[in-house]
Amino acid sequence: MNDVAIVAAGQSKFGKRTDAGLRNLAFEAVKDLVEHADNISLKEDIDATVIGVAGDEFNGQGAPAAVLIDEIGMVGKPTIRVESACATGTAAIKTAYSLVKSGLHDTVLVVGVEKMTAVSTAKATELMARAGDIRWEYPFGCTFPGFYALMATKHMEEYGTTKEMLSSVSVKNHFYGAKNPKAHLRKEITLEEAMNSIMIAHPLNLYDCSLISDGAAAVVVTKADLAKKYTDTPIYVRGIGSGSDTMQISRRPSLTSLTGARIAAQAAYKMAGVGPEDIDLAEVHDCFTIAEIIAYEDLGFAKPGEGGKLALEGQTYIGGKVAVNVDGGLKSKGHPLGATGVSQAYEIFRQLRGEVASEGRQVDGAEIGLSHNVGQTGQFVNVIIYGR
Amino acid sequence: MNDVAIVAAGQSKFGKRTDAGLRNLAFEAVKDLVEHADNISLKEDIDATVIGVAGDEFNGQGAPAAVLIDEIGMVGKPTIRVESACATGTAAIKTAYSLVKSGLHDTVLVVGVEKMTAVSTAKATELMARAGDIRWEYPFGCTFPGFYALMATKHMEEYGTTKEMLSSVSVKNHFYGAKNPKAHLRKEITLEEAMNSIMIAHPLNLYDCSLISDGAAAVVVTKADLAKKYTDTPIYVRGIGSGSDTMQISRRPSLTSLTGARIAAQAAYKMAGVGPEDIDLAEVHDCFTIAEIIAYEDLGFAKPGEGGKLALEGQTYIGGKVAVNVDGGLKSKGHPLGATGVSQAYEIFRQLRGEVASEGRQVDGAEIGLSHNVGQTGQFVNVIIYGR
Repeated sequence: MNDVAIVAAGQSKFGKRTDAGLRNLAFEAVKDLVEHADNISLKEDIDATVIGVAGDEFNGQGAPAAVLIDEIGMVGKPTIRVESACATGTAAIKTAYSLVKSGLHDTVLVVGVEKMTAVSTAKATELMARAGDIRWEYPFGCTFPGFYALMATKHMEEYGTTKEMLSSVSVKNHFYGAKNPKAHLRKEITLEEAMNSIMIAHPLNLYDCSLISDGAAAVVVTKADLAKKYTDTPIYVRGIGSGSDTMQISRRPSLTSLTGARIAAQAAYKMAGVGPEDIDLAEVHDCFTIAEIIAYEDLGFAKPGEGGKLALEGQTYIGGKVAVNVDGGLKSKGHPLGATGVSQAYEIFRQLRGEVASEGRQVDGAEIGLSHNVGQTGQFVNVIIYGR
Repeated sequence: MNDVAIVAAGQSKFGKRTDAGLRNLAFEAVKDLVEHADNISLKEDIDATVIGVAGDEFNGQGAPAAVLIDEIGMVGKPTIRVESACATGTAAIKTAYSLVKSGLHDTVLVVGVEKMTAVSTAKATELMARAGDIRWEYPFGCTFPGFYALMATKHMEEYGTTKEMLSSVSVKNHFYGAKNPKAHLRKEITLEEAMNSIMIAHPLNLYDCSLISDGAAAVVVTKADLAKKYTDTPIYVRGIGSGSDTMQISRRPSLTSLTGARIAAQAAYKMAGVGPEDIDLAEVHDCFTIAEIIAYEDLGFAKPGEGGKLALEGQTYIGGKVAVNVDGGLKSKGHPLGATGVSQAYEIFRQLRGEVASEGRQVDGAEIGLSHNVGQTGQFVNVIIYGR
């Protein structure tokens, strides 16, 4: 425990970044990291990079790590690209943790990035859908809003979860995203607006769905005994857990819980020696509002079936039981696939260091943060627990 | 040193596998591994998987790890996909090494796989070319035969390397590939045939170029103190080194050496505590014949400029200075991108255990093997040293 730490973090502005391609976004995140780092020289201190990019086809560049390490000045040093669909960012952090802890490299720069808006929204939706099963599900019209709509419908039927509960998640995430200067969609919405927006896949409407965004985030991961060289306030990686699930959701015993997330959470809690009650803030994978509600339950913040009530009661705002997605989440901050898990680390890093106060969304005294990052419909899940 | 071992290995038949898709190939390699393993239960002994696939677009399946772990029965367990273009296989092994050595997972199954022939050869060439720089090189017609032709021409001009030297590499690799039942193109060729085949990109002709193949390979990586539970003859990972280079080859100071390969080799030798003179057999990345000659020099088997002579003199046949690519190499065994680096480990594993005698290509008494795996034109290079 506490053998590996994050000592610096940065993020680009998320959004429809017509001004920036894949390379520019990565550069912007690394530049932000360097400018906010206490004492890091990329050239002298970084031994290797791990690059998280989910999809080649969004921008046509094969093997994207090579262009990216060139753009950020890491040529000559070892690099590796990892991909786990929408859980790519945390897969990159897990890989960096392993490279450091194994002794292969002392200090590793992680960059998660995705440029999604260079193709049409229809094409982006198709590319994401092809991360579903292209043999048994995609050909029958299954896209991600459809998959999560199935989960929502089942959750409603089984537990009495309501549309109002789903929309409460959206209202909260927009409330905080409006305060986050790097968020994609910075506007508060009312419960009425959330409930009455256009239908996408029943019961999910526009405000139940996360955004197609461009963006990048970066962190520096190092050995604990080097951490204080780079900052007085390192944030330690205390637990990492991962799980997976069947390719086809039609083969799963339950649609109201992600088995991979439960496996991942249990492993992460065990490794960190903490439980759900110890988490001060959580970054969860709200690709759809129902996903955040299911995350509450899979992570143990609520009992099975009671996630919707937790949202409706406002228990996941700052000051409630546990602060969730107070950077706006995928819903309002945006969801550039490869960047998302790294951005979760960026947010937790800043929160645990008390650096978000000026944005009016600091979780005061937060000591332990949790990141929950889901690929596809739960085929990959990583849960990472960070502590001061 | 010797903290991590390979305890089982398997490989599919390489070739134009019209009978097998991506999933089938992975299954075939894992089945071969299980059937040849001394004492391994996938279900009970494997804690996580690492999947190496280089390109999504060859088969249209996004986030391919999910379908693959489902096909091979690893659902529920953690997985991660890694990609480093043609060096994907060794990137996967390096990642597995790190996951094991870090303590996150005890025993990890690595599967490298590529299905390349479902698209036309022209499309496959385009997809590979797009792993070159799509902004500054690909649009001007640069494909991989062209890149390596530049290197060959420069090597000839600078060192007097001859076409006969290039063709000698091809003759050797076909000689051994003919003996390898899992090789793609099993036929011996004469020096005359090699020198007079149709021109692809001057001075590289057909027999200077590796194959577009389908295939998969798999290994099990575990902690050394668990290794003897699975086999009496584990093969240890003794050194791993990685390097990288500029995206555009036009910006490199030299075309006759891969800087990333030199960095990787030095790091691997240092970690393993051995030098080039200690290597009994090497698996090097002969995507083109000139690449094998440059590899001899980058790995220290020959001085700069003398790699061609080493080939011409037959010093890289069994019984020579160092046995190189005695499974046929990428040239004759085939080059299914994500599988190649894992197949190198498969070959070294069997050679160091003395299991290739029946195929008439055993390097008798081999104790140390080296794998050299290059992505693109040297943007990623991994060198791994294995020992008994």
